[in-house]
Amino acid sequence: MPLPVYLDYNATTPLDARVLEVMLPYLKTQYGNASSRHEYGRAARRAVDAARQQVAAAVGAQPTEIIFVSSGSEANNLFLKGAAASFRTSGAVAFGAVEHPCALNAARQLARRNWRLIELPVDAAGRVTRAGVDAALAQKPELWSVMLANNETGVMQDAAEFADEAQKQGGGWFHSDAAQVLGKRSLDFRALNQAGVHALTLSAHKIYGPKGAAALVADRRLDLIPLIAGGGQEGGLRSGTENVAAIAGFGAACELAAARLNDLPARLRRLQTRLEAGLIPLGATLFGADAPRLPNTSYFAFAGVDGETLLTRLDRAGFAVASGAACSSANPNPSHVLLAMGVPEDLARGALRVSLGADTEAEQIDAFLLALETALAELKNMTALRS
Amino acid sequence: MPLPVYLDYNATTPLDARVLEVMLPYLKTQYGNASSRHEYGRAARRAVDAARQQVAAAVGAQPTEIIFVSSGSEANNLFLKGAAASFRTSGAVAFGAVEHPCALNAARQLARRNWRLIELPVDAAGRVTRAGVDAALAQKPELWSVMLANNETGVMQDAAEFADEAQKQGGGWFHSDAAQVLGKRSLDFRALNQAGVHALTLSAHKIYGPKGAAALVADRRLDLIPLIAGGGQEGGLRSGTENVAAIAGFGAACELAAARLNDLPARLRRLQTRLEAGLIPLGATLFGADAPRLPNTSYFAFAGVDGETLLTRLDRAGFAVASGAACSSANPNPSHVLLAMGVPEDLARGALRVSLGADTEAEQIDAFLLALETALAELKNMTALRS
Repeated sequence: MPLPVYLDYNATTPLDARVLEVMLPYLKTQYGNASSRHEYGRAARRAVDAARQQVAAAVGAQPTEIIFVSSGSEANNLFLKGAAASFRTSGAVAFGAVEHPCALNAARQLARRNWRLIELPVDAAGRVTRAGVDAALAQKPELWSVMLANNETGVMQDAAEFADEAQKQGGGWFHSDAAQVLGKRSLDFRALNQAGVHALTLSAHKIYGPKGAAALVADRRLDLIPLIAGGGQEGGLRSGTENVAAIAGFGAACELAAARLNDLPARLRRLQTRLEAGLIPLGATLFGADAPRLPNTSYFAFAGVDGETLLTRLDRAGFAVASGAACSSANPNPSHVLLAMGVPEDLARGALRVSLGADTEAEQIDAFLLALETALAELKNMTALRS
Repeated sequence: MPLPVYLDYNATTPLDARVLEVMLPYLKTQYGNASSRHEYGRAARRAVDAARQQVAAAVGAQPTEIIFVSSGSEANNLFLKGAAASFRTSGAVAFGAVEHPCALNAARQLARRNWRLIELPVDAAGRVTRAGVDAALAQKPELWSVMLANNETGVMQDAAEFADEAQKQGGGWFHSDAAQVLGKRSLDFRALNQAGVHALTLSAHKIYGPKGAAALVADRRLDLIPLIAGGGQEGGLRSGTENVAAIAGFGAACELAAARLNDLPARLRRLQTRLEAGLIPLGATLFGADAPRLPNTSYFAFAGVDGETLLTRLDRAGFAVASGAACSSANPNPSHVLLAMGVPEDLARGALRVSLGADTEAEQIDAFLLALETALAELKNMTALRS
C-alpha cells in the first residue's frame, strides 16, 4: 500500500534527509556529553555552538539570544512562567484568545499564582483586535503573549504593532510564538525586538527538523527563572544534558529553512490557491480567509458535516489531514480558535485543516479534492437515507 | 588518529546500534505527530505506547506510571516543583546533600517560594545518615528526594529504608533519582513503591539510549502540577509534541538494559576491581570505597595533583574521563559531593571519575593505568623542577 498523502505539515513535518545526515554522527561515534571536558565532550559542544549560530542567523538574532529547549510548548511555558516568576509580586498577563493551548494553559497556571489574565479578543477573521489591545494596555500588563501566526487558521497577527504600542504605553515583556512562521515567512528578531518583541518561540519539527529541539529566542534583558534548574546549561536558563543530535538537526533545518524562503512560500501559496479554488465549489466555509494568512494553511468546514467523520474517511482514502489542532486532539471540544472567532459550535465541529509543505505536489491537491468530493457525497447520501 | 578510550559512561553512553535501528523509522517515513488522528499519527502513537510498556517492564512499573520527559533534570524538577505546587501552602523538602545539581537547584527554587529546605548530611563514605533522616522526620517534610546512587561516587543510598521510615512517621512524597542505577542494578518500582518510594527518575542516555528522552515513574496517587502545560500529552502532566524517535529508543534501550543485567554488572565489577587494584599503588585516595557502590564507578584523587590538569593530560593521551560531574563542569568549584563527605577542598580539587560501560575492555583499563602513571610522573617532575 502506498504511503498516505501527508497534508498535515502544521502538526509536524518529515525530517529532511539532509538534516538526518547532520544528526547521524551524534547518534553514532560523537556521543559525548557537551559538558564533558574531553574530546567527545568538545565535539558535542562544537555541534551545539554551531547550531546556535545557525538558529540565530536564520531569524536575525544573536547566538547569545538562543535558549535551546525540548519543544515549542516548553519555550512558551518558559517565557510565561519563567518571566512571571522573576517578578516579586503577581501582575497581569495579556494573551490572544487564539493562542496555542500551551500558552493558554501556562497562563492559566499563572492565574493560580494570582496573576490577572487578560484575554485579547479576535475578530471574525481570527485577528487580535486593536480595540482589545487598547483595553489591555489600560491595565499595563507585565507580560504579553501574542502569536505571529495561528497553527489552526494560519492567520497572522500584528504582534510587532501591538508590541510597539505596549512599549510606548508602559512597557511589559512581549513574547510571540513564531513556531508556525519559521520557514514559511522571513523572521527578523532584530527588527521585531526593536519594535518591542522580547522573545520568540521556534520549533525544529515544524521546519523539517527533528522533534525534541526548539528554542526561546530571548532579549538578554529579559529576566527568566528556569523551568528546569540544574547543571546550568543554556546560560543557567535551561538545565539538562543537551540533546546534541536534535540541536544539530535544528541548526541544519534552520539553515535549510532560510534557503527555502526564496521559493517555498510562493509555491505553497499557489498550491493553497489551487486547493481553495476547489473547496469553494464543494460548499466549504473557509476560516480566516479575510485575514493575512500563512501560505500553506487552509481551515474549513462544510455545514452539517462532522469534521471527525470526514477526517476518518479521508484517512481511509489515503489522505492525512487534521481536524482542529493536533496537540489538543485528545480534547473532544470544538476548536477554541473557531469559538473565539464567533464560529457557531456546530460549524466549528466540522473543521478540517489542510496544511501544505515542501513535498506537496499539485497532483496531490487534485487527488485530495476528488477524495473530499467523494466523501462528502457519500456522507450526504447516508444522511439522506437516514432522514 | 584512533578514537579516544571512553571512560565516562556516567556522563553519557554511546547509543547502542540496535537502539538507533529502532529509532530510524521515526526519523524517516514514520514522522507523524502522535496526537494526529491519521495513519502517520497512529504509527507514532503506537511507538510511544510500546516504549511506555518497555520502560515500565524494565523497572517493574505499570505503563500508566510512566511520564515521558526530555531529561533526568526535567524529571527531578517535575517531581520537586510539580509536587510542591500541588500543596496549598509551602512546606518542607528533605534531600540528600549529595543529590545531583538538578535536584539541589530545584529545591533551592522552592526556597524562594518559602519552602523549608532540609539537607540530609552524608557520612565520610558519602551515605545519607540515618541520624540525619531521623532529624528530618521530626519536621515531617512534605517532600523527600534521596537518590538511589550518586553520579560522582557511585555510592548507593538506603532510599527504600528511608522511604519506609518516612511512611511510618507521618508520610510525605518520596522521590529517588535512579538515573545512574538503571541498567547497572535491577530496579523494582513495585517493591520500592511498597516501601514508600513514590517516584523514580530514569534517563535514556545513561543506558545506551538517546539523549532527549527520560521518565518520571510516578505513583498515580502523587499529585503533580505540570512544568510544561499545554496540549495535555502524558496524561496532562507533560505537554509538548512527543519526541517519538527518542522515546522509541528509550523503550528499546530499557529492554536491552534489562537483558544486560544478567552479565554486565558482574563484568563491570571485575573491571572496576582491576582498575582500583592499579590505582592504589599509584597513591590514589578512593572516595566512597567503604560504601556499597555501583559496579562501574571509581572516583579518586592524588594528593597535591590538580584534577583538571590530570584530566587534560589524559585527554591528550587519548583517555576520556571526568573531573567532578559533567553536568556541573561549567562550575569551577570543587565537587559539592566530596565537600559534603568532608573531603578537604584541596584533595577534592584533585578528583577524577572513571566510569565504565558495556564497551570497556580490560586492556583499556591497563592502558589507562599506564597513561595515568606517566601523567603523574610528569606532573611530579614538573613540581620538583618548580620547587
